[in-house]
This record gives sequence, structure tokens and C-alpha cells, in this order.
Amino acid sequence: MKELQDRILKDGQVIGTNILKVNKFINHQVDPVLMEHIGEDFANHFADKGITKVVTIESSGIAPALMAAAKMNVPLVILKKQPSKTLHNDLYQTQVTSFTTEKSYELTLSRDVISEDDNILLIDDFMADGEAATGAIRLLRMAHATVAGIGILIEKSFQPGRRKINEQGYEVYSLARIKYMDEYQIDFIEEN
Amino acid sequence: MKELQDRILKDGQVIGTNILKVNKFINHQVDPVLMEHIGEDFANHFADKGITKVVTIESSGIAPALMAAAKMNVPLVILKKQPSKTLHNDLYQTQVTSFTTEKSYELTLSRDVISEDDNILLIDDFMADGEAATGAIRLLRMAHATVAGIGILIEKSFQPGRRKINEQGYEVYSLARIKYMDEYQIDFIEEN
Repeated sequence: MKELQDRILKDGQVIGTNILKVNKFINHQVDPVLMEHIGEDFANHFADKGITKVVTIESSGIAPALMAAAKMNVPLVILKKQPSKTLHNDLYQTQVTSFTTEKSYELTLSRDVISEDDNILLIDDFMADGEAATGAIRLLRMAHATVAGIGILIEKSFQPGRRKINEQGYEVYSLARIKYMDEYQIDFIEEN
Repeated sequence: MKELQDRILKDGQVIGTNILKVNKFINHQVDPVLMEHIGEDFANHFADKGITKVVTIESSGIAPALMAAAKMNVPLVILKKQPSKTLHNDLYQTQVTSFTTEKSYELTLSRDVISEDDNILLIDDFMADGEAATGAIRLLRMAHATVAGIGILIEKSFQPGRRKINEQGYEVYSLARIKYMDEYQIDFIEEN
């Protein structure tokens, strides 16, 4: 998506060769017009997949996922992060460990919002090692839902997330795929 | 807002006389159509206030605040919660303690997203004791921004939040004001 690539080049801030800060338009300050266009792009791409719900992980995925859900006219479900496992029969939960920060959290989903009849589009802001998406898929499978596809705003294509998700049999559709980045340049892969 | 009141009566779940769970349409599963209508209502109400940015607190306020920002055609800024104070010159931060849970967190705002020229509409999902809104106002004043008003989805009018915010000189506009609730009934105050 050229609009997102251009915005990353204009307002993104690269630290080292691994960290991309998008605080000006996605994570901290959010551009609602860009989010609407991103939502439209996802809605168009997954239009023939019979999506019944959009799912995201709190909190940076909420804005683009909400816009996609609005365009597709389906509910949004926000998977919650909790610091530790809670004893709760009404919840599905699974532990996610970030390779980057080595921190763990419990990803949770209420049993009454997703069912085996649901066909899910999972949306998140970043894909790097794929740990968050893999955890979300695990949780959605506990609910016996079908994962129809994964929509990502920014993929760090030099990390193994996409390959790992593809190997589990899921499509990853990324709006901006970064091949290489440093303080001076950001190179994109031109196909989604 | 009748649509929100009706939805609370239909899908809200009251525990005791103090906890209202809105997991089915606001907090966990989110209804994008309702969020659009809420965004429109806020945009209409604050139309003549010269709002330059909408601000919310992660993560339950993001969906309605994004829709309001989209309707008003201004950026959204998400105040971040962090477990403890961090040493960071680029951040404004202030401690917020929840009266209900007695837990504390640091509310943070990057110095480069809000300025003294900004005229802010603060949006949050709930108002109870007003601690979160008071913390957000404190943070926005550190940035020398003007707070033009506060938009709330659900106000627990039997708690002191609204009065405390009004006493600081700010308007509170709440879409659903709950006078009393228990397992069997929810009574609303009919004016905003």
C-alpha cells in the first residue's frame, strides 16, 4: 500500500536496524484518515472470504482493525493482554513470549464472543517474529473458530514471522513489507 | 443517547450495584456501527469548540475516540499506561490510582504529539471516580494544551467523577448517565 509506505518514509523513525517507531501516525498519535484507507484495503482484499469477525490484539491494532470491521460490517473482538494467568472458566488463555523483549503475557478471549461458526480476519500493526499472531491463532483454535487470513500493517520481512505463519497454513497479507532498514533508508518488498 | 442506553439494557451485565460489564459491545467485542454513531454524536456536540485533537486512554476508549476523530477530521492521541515511572525526557507522565482497584499506573504522553496550540476533546468509555480523566487533564496541562471538553460513553452518576471534573472547570458530556443499577434494573438520568 503506497500510502502507508510513503507515510513510513515520511514519519517513521528507525533505531538501529530493527526498531521502527510509528508513534506519529499509528501507535501513539493515530491518523484516522490513514486508518480508514487501511480498513478499506483489508476489507477489499478479504471481501470474498466470508469473514464474520475481525480480531485484533490490544492496543495498537485496535484502530486499523476497527476501521476494517466497520467497512466489512462485522464485529471487532479485542484480545486482551494480562500480566499473568488467571483462574477463570469463562476465558480461553495462552501465554505469548516476545522474542524481542523476552517478556511474557497471557492473551485472553472470553468464551462467549467467538464460536466455531466464526470465520476470522486477524489484524495487527506489526509482524516480526510472529509470536503474537501465533498466540492469537492458538486462542482462536481453542474456540474452534476458522482463521481465514491475517492482515498486517507493517511486516519486518527480515524476521521469520511471515514464514512461520505461512507454514501453519495461513495467508499473511501485509500492507508494507520492510526488507531492510537503518537510520538512512527503508527498503520495501513491493508485493503484498 | 438512546441507542447506547438501549444497548446497555440489552447487553450490559450488572454485578452488584457498582460493576457494569459491557464486554459484548464496547470493551472486548466492539460494535463498529455503534462506535460510528457515538463518534458522530461527540463530533456534533463539540462541533463549535475548535477541537484540534481527540485524546483517549488505552485501551477501551480507542474505538469510540477514533470514530469521533474520524468524524471531526483531526488526529487521535492515545495516552499510554505503564506499570511504573520510567526515566524518559521525551515523555510527560503522571501517576493515576484507581479508587476501585487501588492499583496505580503511570499515564504517559510524548512531548512531540501535543502542544500549547492544541484544543483537546478527551474521550473515555467510563467515568466513575474521575481519577483517569483527572490524570489525563493533568498530563494535557503539562503539555500546556487546552482541554475543551470531556466526552464519556457511560457515566456512573452515583460516583463523584463528574462533579470533580466540573469543579475543575471542565464540561462533561456523557452519552449514558446511570443513576442506579442492580441485577434487575438500570435507571438513567435523561439529560447529558
